[in-house]
Amino acid sequence: MIKAGVLGATGMVGQRFIELLNDHPWFELSALAASERSAGKEYGDVAKWRLDTDIPVEINGLEVVLPDPKYVDADIVFSALPSDVAKEVEPKFAEAGCIVASNAAAYRMEEDVPLLIPEVNADHLELVDRQKKNRGWDGFIVTNPNCTTIMMTLTLKPLAEFGIESVTIATMQAISGAGYSGVPSMAIVDNLVPFISGEEPKVETEPLKLLGAYDGSRIVDADFTISASCHRVAVIDGHTESIWVKMKDNPSPEEVKDAFSNFKGSIESPTAPDAPIMVRDELDRPQPRLDRGKGDGMSVTVGRIRKSRLEDQIMYIAVGHNTIRGAAGASVLNAELMVDRGYLHK
Amino acid sequence: MIKAGVLGATGMVGQRFIELLNDHPWFELSALAASERSAGKEYGDVAKWRLDTDIPVEINGLEVVLPDPKYVDADIVFSALPSDVAKEVEPKFAEAGCIVASNAAAYRMEEDVPLLIPEVNADHLELVDRQKKNRGWDGFIVTNPNCTTIMMTLTLKPLAEFGIESVTIATMQAISGAGYSGVPSMAIVDNLVPFISGEEPKVETEPLKLLGAYDGSRIVDADFTISASCHRVAVIDGHTESIWVKMKDNPSPEEVKDAFSNFKGSIESPTAPDAPIMVRDELDRPQPRLDRGKGDGMSVTVGRIRKSRLEDQIMYIAVGHNTIRGAAGASVLNAELMVDRGYLHK
Amino acid sequence: MIKAGVLGATGMVGQRFIELLNDHPWFELSALAASERSAGKEYGDVAKWRLDTDIPVEINGLEVVLPDPKYVDADIVFSALPSDVAKEVEPKFAEAGCIVASNAAAYRMEEDVPLLIPEVNADHLELVDRQKKNRGWDGFIVTNPNCTTIMMTLTLKPLAEFGIESVTIATMQAISGAGYSGVPSMAIVDNLVPFISGEEPKVETEPLKLLGAYDGSRIVDADFTISASCHRVAVIDGHTESIWVKMKDNPSPEEVKDAFSNFKGSIESPTAPDAPIMVRDELDRPQPRLDRGKGDGMSVTVGRIRKSRLEDQIMYIAVGHNTIRGAAGASVLNAELMVDRGYLHK
Amino acid sequence: MIKAGVLGATGMVGQRFIELLNDHPWFELSALAASERSAGKEYGDVAKWRLDTDIPVEINGLEVVLPDPKYVDADIVFSALPSDVAKEVEPKFAEAGCIVASNAAAYRMEEDVPLLIPEVNADHLELVDRQKKNRGWDGFIVTNPNCTTIMMTLTLKPLAEFGIESVTIATMQAISGAGYSGVPSMAIVDNLVPFISGEEPKVETEPLKLLGAYDGSRIVDADFTISASCHRVAVIDGHTESIWVKMKDNPSPEEVKDAFSNFKGSIESPTAPDAPIMVRDELDRPQPRLDRGKGDGMSVTVGRIRKSRLEDQIMYIAVGHNTIRGAAGASVLNAELMVDRGYLHK
Repeated sequence: MIKAGVLGATGMVGQRFIELLNDHPWFELSALAASERSAGKEYGDVAKWRLDTDIPVEINGLEVVLPDPKYVDADIVFSALPSDVAKEVEPKFAEAGCIVASNAAAYRMEEDVPLLIPEVNADHLELVDRQKKNRGWDGFIVTNPNCTTIMMTLTLKPLAEFGIESVTIATMQAISGAGYSGVPSMAIVDNLVPFISGEEPKVETEPLKLLGAYDGSRIVDADFTISASCHRVAVIDGHTESIWVKMKDNPSPEEVKDAFSNFKGSIESPTAPDAPIMVRDELDRPQPRLDRGKGDGMSVTVGRIRKSRLEDQIMYIAVGHNTIRGAAGASVLNAELMVDRGYLHK
Repeated sequence: MIKAGVLGATGMVGQRFIELLNDHPWFELSALAASERSAGKEYGDVAKWRLDTDIPVEINGLEVVLPDPKYVDADIVFSALPSDVAKEVEPKFAEAGCIVASNAAAYRMEEDVPLLIPEVNADHLELVDRQKKNRGWDGFIVTNPNCTTIMMTLTLKPLAEFGIESVTIATMQAISGAGYSGVPSMAIVDNLVPFISGEEPKVETEPLKLLGAYDGSRIVDADFTISASCHRVAVIDGHTESIWVKMKDNPSPEEVKDAFSNFKGSIESPTAPDAPIMVRDELDRPQPRLDRGKGDGMSVTVGRIRKSRLEDQIMYIAVGHNTIRGAAGASVLNAELMVDRGYLHK
Repeated sequence: MIKAGVLGATGMVGQRFIELLNDHPWFELSALAASERSAGKEYGDVAKWRLDTDIPVEINGLEVVLPDPKYVDADIVFSALPSDVAKEVEPKFAEAGCIVASNAAAYRMEEDVPLLIPEVNADHLELVDRQKKNRGWDGFIVTNPNCTTIMMTLTLKPLAEFGIESVTIATMQAISGAGYSGVPSMAIVDNLVPFISGEEPKVETEPLKLLGAYDGSRIVDADFTISASCHRVAVIDGHTESIWVKMKDNPSPEEVKDAFSNFKGSIESPTAPDAPIMVRDELDRPQPRLDRGKGDGMSVTVGRIRKSRLEDQIMYIAVGHNTIRGAAGASVLNAELMVDRGYLHK
Repeated sequence: MIKAGVLGATGMVGQRFIELLNDHPWFELSALAASERSAGKEYGDVAKWRLDTDIPVEINGLEVVLPDPKYVDADIVFSALPSDVAKEVEPKFAEAGCIVASNAAAYRMEEDVPLLIPEVNADHLELVDRQKKNRGWDGFIVTNPNCTTIMMTLTLKPLAEFGIESVTIATMQAISGAGYSGVPSMAIVDNLVPFISGEEPKVETEPLKLLGAYDGSRIVDADFTISASCHRVAVIDGHTESIWVKMKDNPSPEEVKDAFSNFKGSIESPTAPDAPIMVRDELDRPQPRLDRGKGDGMSVTVGRIRKSRLEDQIMYIAVGHNTIRGAAGASVLNAELMVDRGYLHK
């Protein structure tokens, strides 16, 4: 078994990491790290468990440590740290020879750091060799994209063959994306907030790196433009995205549907869903409460595939689970890819 | 005082009509009409009052009549009828010499029927002369657009000077838009529905008539394309619209903001808001719960005016009250315009 | 395998029956019955599947039949029929030799019909012998209580030893309890409704039969009084109950907690939870979203066990899943009890 | 005009104070005080305005000062301070000769501090003479009760004549009661929380002081017992209370209804509602969204008045606006009482 630590273990994404790694056939939870406020105490005493599953009994009594390689005994650490903390902490783990699978934004856009979705750009993983050499590290950092980016980019991948020219996206994002206390109820009951701090720039740039070409030494960004408007709505889990894609080949809705349905991932692993993209034919689907759990939260569900009145555009709706496929599950799937490709050994 | 009847008086839009017309300085409620199920009974016994204002005491005891000119004594009738009923009933009133101010979709796109927003296309009102002649009616029908169309078109009007080339719109619409029982709570708590039956075609066509030119005999539709994706969210009242506009002159966000701020309506009347468009500078506004009531529900609030990454596009968010500005208030404002222009006499 | 039919298969409780019976180790779904509107069509075409699990593939193509023993080939039928339909239909099945496990209210309070919660009054099942004799039926009807009654009565059972004298209960009930379209969203967003038609009388009487003594020929109702106030809140699934119990022995909160924790069910079967009552110590639990799924929806979770300022009263909060433990799961558990006690044979 | 300051002016109750005092015929806003974080800055820059009314223009540019009599020029200060801050700050104002109308809990239960609801115990105001003498202050402190207490106690006052013996209350409280950020949306969407820190003891004790008799020198608490269970639900504004009252005279529901309907307040003043208690006959009322605004938020609406199955108990539902009648409006009404009774001069 591979020893796995979780950095930022008490927050919502940290709890999802524990949920996914507990009973995982390849990994065993070896360390839970969090801030000074929690370190030295038992996990069950400092983490208020917010999931509707029960906290694993054996986790309850684990002592929380500081997010420092000195205290964390692990082959790989999953990072749910806030971006500013991640910036400091993650390199220390990589330097100490540990692999870092990070959900934080801090290093996503660095030239020698892979930003990965296994079904989209598994080959970018090779960047880590350059990263280790560049930085003189024994370990390395691998990142997954922003939650909203992941759902959208999974659906753009099978459309790349048609020649994507531009993407317009309006999102309706779940409150869990802001962390447990991120969205006050006063802000969202009988209301929505048409702004999410820092979100639109991520959604407009990360997919270009993800869909970019790895030429053996660097990533050449994909050459199209994305325009995003991001909104928060009163949904617990599950981001909904309304997407317009302009494509050179101007495919029909049927061709797009086939491309989605035939899309397969590049690995078979415990967390990889059978179908990364599930297509629904009902007029009023996908819906976040009904579809976020598909593929154990790892599939993206699409529907309403149709022609736009604006020339050469296809429109559709995508829904995915933001804290599973869009966060903790994304990092775990990246880790499974690393095992599959020999970067990490059972 | 002008005698005013309400057709479809028991539903949600009908209740808003009563709320707006009660104590109106120009109109007095003279008749409440509804279906056979309610006719012959007292209004207070058949209408379950759903507004947080109290039902006017003098309305409670009014006898509901059938929506037939025989029973409705009125100079003008406000129609909140379902579209299929409106198709049958509204012409009978016009034929009988009554003016019909209709919120129904049935006649909106007829060539000789004005589709009106006073601040946008008051001159289209002249079409009624042709309508009366064409059809041999003593009265006539005037319509207001779909709720979503109204908010959007009010904001497009001041942008017309920049040469609108295309519009992309994603909506987050309030549940009241579907009527009191239209959206089951099971469909919308911790959820959203990315589809509203019949909505997108209306939003994609009505604005072109509204922004079209009246050449003295007919409307020439505006020459641009709209692509709409419409979604229902857990908000009681207030539609939110995320809008991208491509314009020939490529105005800056500041120019667009000025155009919005300087936009004035063409009439002063009891229901006309001081500012048809209110601009907010906060990053996270407009929001439906906080902004739907602005201008007593008759103003549209816009914010987040910004450049899109897609060339020559401006993005912004608009919020308006769907059952006031988007329905009952729209018809009442049209009626006030008719008084102001001499089509209806106090 | 025992052949099982579902009556009222298209509604929400019907869908839960299908979810629970599909892959059940003892039962196989042999017939789905619904009203004339659906009969003769494929299930997947007439039932809009509302659960977040997928509809079982093999169910999709089943032809729906009328709820008549002529068309329903089954050893046992699970009834999710509306009460007035159940009144007509259920006796026909019993007469035809079929066992009816009913969630409907129609026969719950009949003298010779068992109202059953296996962990509470399994011995009442013997009433069916009298029922068959009385009515000259080859089959019989067994019922489960109202959803709200079930949660409360499960928690009252272990308190019976202390001599219950009175119970006061205020409920906060989930919208799914009213069926998919039962509660309009306009009624419940930013709101609650302090009334549920017909609910309070059921909650005030059914527990007395459930906790009554079977003397070999009839049930003698338990001798205490219940006062209930029932309210609907914006929760999808999971009823919350705030309960005061006055007991002759005046037990301490610790004694009550022990009674809850030590309470065991009387059967081991596929649907029976390990712990019918789970006790939580956190100050702010149980909560419906976090606790309704405990024991696969079959456990009731209690917390905040404390002394009331009113003499000799214990207060606590109980949460249970209203459409699983409180409806479909209740009937299935009753069916498993009948198998366990030899009334139904594998 | 009387000069009025607001302490804790940036929070939700502080904003309600500004809303109520702006354009008040007797008071003029003379100072806004808040913590060090805000002092010295313009109000519009530090207070995020959360109400759906607009922030008064003239307030926007006011400089916020520290809550210290040195900086606050006022005849009366309205305190929306947190209880621990109020404990320090309020006596300084009273010592400096200022009148303090406080919504904070800090001094509510002090022997020489009036806990006031004008319609309930206006005569307790005389306690301030003793308070000034006791403490050697030129000014004094007057408090209003907890929001939940106010609604309940207003309805208990007209029942006192029947001889109240005990009260059982289950509440469903609005999220605004916890302040803007008090309840995370993750805690309340598709959920409720059956616990509110510190609430039940207040609800169980404050009404006894309010309904107590003033014997010329002290308050003798009312002699009955209250048992409360308090719960938070997904409602923006408006607490709902399900109440059981046992009375010696065992009045009928009709007698109770008459007592409610005939109940009048003891003063006529700008904020005093025409009817402190409004009775509704519909089976499903009161409801918070529909009834919280009655009497401009100052009336309590009751309904479902009925006999309990438990002997000599009457049950009913009460709804009131928690941040108006239950907080800021309560303090303003107390201030108006002080003007009316000559303790404060225009």
